[in-house]
Amino acid sequence: MKKKNNFPSKIAVIGVGLIGGSIALGLKQHFGSQITILGACSTTKRSKSAQRQGVIDETIDLYAQSQGLRSADLIILATPVSKTIKLLKTISKINVGSSLIIDVGSTKESVLNSAKKLLDANVSFMGTHPMAGSEMSGFENANPSLFRNKSWIVCNDRLPTDKSKFTILKELIDILGAKIMIMPSKKHDQLVSWASHLNLVSSSIIIKAIGKHKDWSEIAKIASTGFRDTTRLASSDVGMKKDILISNKKNIIETLYILKNEIDLFIKLANKKDSIGITNYLSEAKFIRDEWIANYFS
Amino acid sequence: MKKKNNFPSKIAVIGVGLIGGSIALGLKQHFGSQITILGACSTTKRSKSAQRQGVIDETIDLYAQSQGLRSADLIILATPVSKTIKLLKTISKINVGSSLIIDVGSTKESVLNSAKKLLDANVSFMGTHPMAGSEMSGFENANPSLFRNKSWIVCNDRLPTDKSKFTILKELIDILGAKIMIMPSKKHDQLVSWASHLNLVSSSIIIKAIGKHKDWSEIAKIASTGFRDTTRLASSDVGMKKDILISNKKNIIETLYILKNEIDLFIKLANKKDSIGITNYLSEAKFIRDEWIANYFS
Repeated sequence: MKKKNNFPSKIAVIGVGLIGGSIALGLKQHFGSQITILGACSTTKRSKSAQRQGVIDETIDLYAQSQGLRSADLIILATPVSKTIKLLKTISKINVGSSLIIDVGSTKESVLNSAKKLLDANVSFMGTHPMAGSEMSGFENANPSLFRNKSWIVCNDRLPTDKSKFTILKELIDILGAKIMIMPSKKHDQLVSWASHLNLVSSSIIIKAIGKHKDWSEIAKIASTGFRDTTRLASSDVGMKKDILISNKKNIIETLYILKNEIDLFIKLANKKDSIGITNYLSEAKFIRDEWIANYFS
Repeated sequence: MKKKNNFPSKIAVIGVGLIGGSIALGLKQHFGSQITILGACSTTKRSKSAQRQGVIDETIDLYAQSQGLRSADLIILATPVSKTIKLLKTISKINVGSSLIIDVGSTKESVLNSAKKLLDANVSFMGTHPMAGSEMSGFENANPSLFRNKSWIVCNDRLPTDKSKFTILKELIDILGAKIMIMPSKKHDQLVSWASHLNLVSSSIIIKAIGKHKDWSEIAKIASTGFRDTTRLASSDVGMKKDILISNKKNIIETLYILKNEIDLFIKLANKKDSIGITNYLSEAKFIRDEWIANYFS
């Protein structure tokens, strides 16, 4: 695909993991050698490995005077949230000129608040969140189609004064096959606590509860595909989940209290052995899930 | 595959849904025209449709003097548990001769207790449970490989006096690619409440809680593959789940109380913003899930 003149040709991906790696591969699939992707992993060894595997073109060292960062027109921060906030501090100390900077982390309010505190108003930074992932972490599991038909949230707390930067972001999302959704970071964090974080947390809680059972070794033998899927996200990256939990603690705990209330409602219904009530409850749940699949995953 | 002499050549599947249909297809794939599969769905129209689609060879009407049942050497009850107990009543009133009868339902104690009450000691009935399923119900979604490498539990509360019957059951399980596990029905119901029923129920509870949210229509847009998998079983057959819940109520409610306690533990940890404690918790959950996948799904 011929590159439009306005799209950056030098792109830095900081955190070449599942998400960063998938963005890099998606852009390379689209633009080929018209763009250069600089990348940094958690260690130089990992970065070199990502480069050897063709996920990135060049390895940059963030701590060597940040030259790599300064030379990129588009900087994508694809690190866990706590690291992203540290990177904003680094960025605040260097001259990134007119580069567009985005992050793609799982929570947004703390990142946008940090950007407000740390970055000059003329720095083009936007907080975004592609709603895609996998329990498999690392660039080894990156996939250029990961974002296809998924929502990509952009927070409008902070939009760049230079509107062409927003156009670049829209083009990036479009190239990766995702659909843009715009909302404030506060709303984002509330909605994703339900759409995503509750699932991340409930998977871990369920498996911890089962793992304590005296007969876990026997349960493990008979557990099947239902168990596999319900607990899948317990296998996802721990650092990412820990940062999500800490940065969106209030909303996530609220979902857990509501879930506990819902469990109580269900226990009451089950205790009554009310066949019609139970059937209605399960039918409503099935209806909501089936409608969702039909409208968003068909 | 040449049929061994001792394996039944006339098999009745009562309840040609996902499980019954998959057993029928698996046996037909193995034996071809050496066996005849009689089948009954919830309605004659459905039975005829299953026959047209080649899932079964002949449609039987259970209520027309049960001739179909009487002519089969192997009768497989693949109905929801409450229906299975009704079928045991029907069977108790007819002469099934030396036929082997098994059920493949999701809970076992109530079925085995009913069999004890209803059936003569010389009737060869065994309660079994293949640990496989899908959120897609009906013979339209049946799959001859559904049971491959899955556990198939056989309850030893009641084993036939004629040992050749047990050999037939073992052969059936082997043909379908599953692995036999033997345990009492009481133990079965306790273990599957964790391995399977908790997942069935938690999926429905989570989706009911989310569906009540004032912003559900927006959450629906951003929910992705994690949400899809965590809630998958909410889409599974309601009648089956209702019967599971009623017949295994005590064990399932116990798992829900333990889950609530685990949620409370997690909320305490999250409230402390104890980064190391949270990391340890999530790492332990990931370890248990990863080990399970490596040992049972690799």
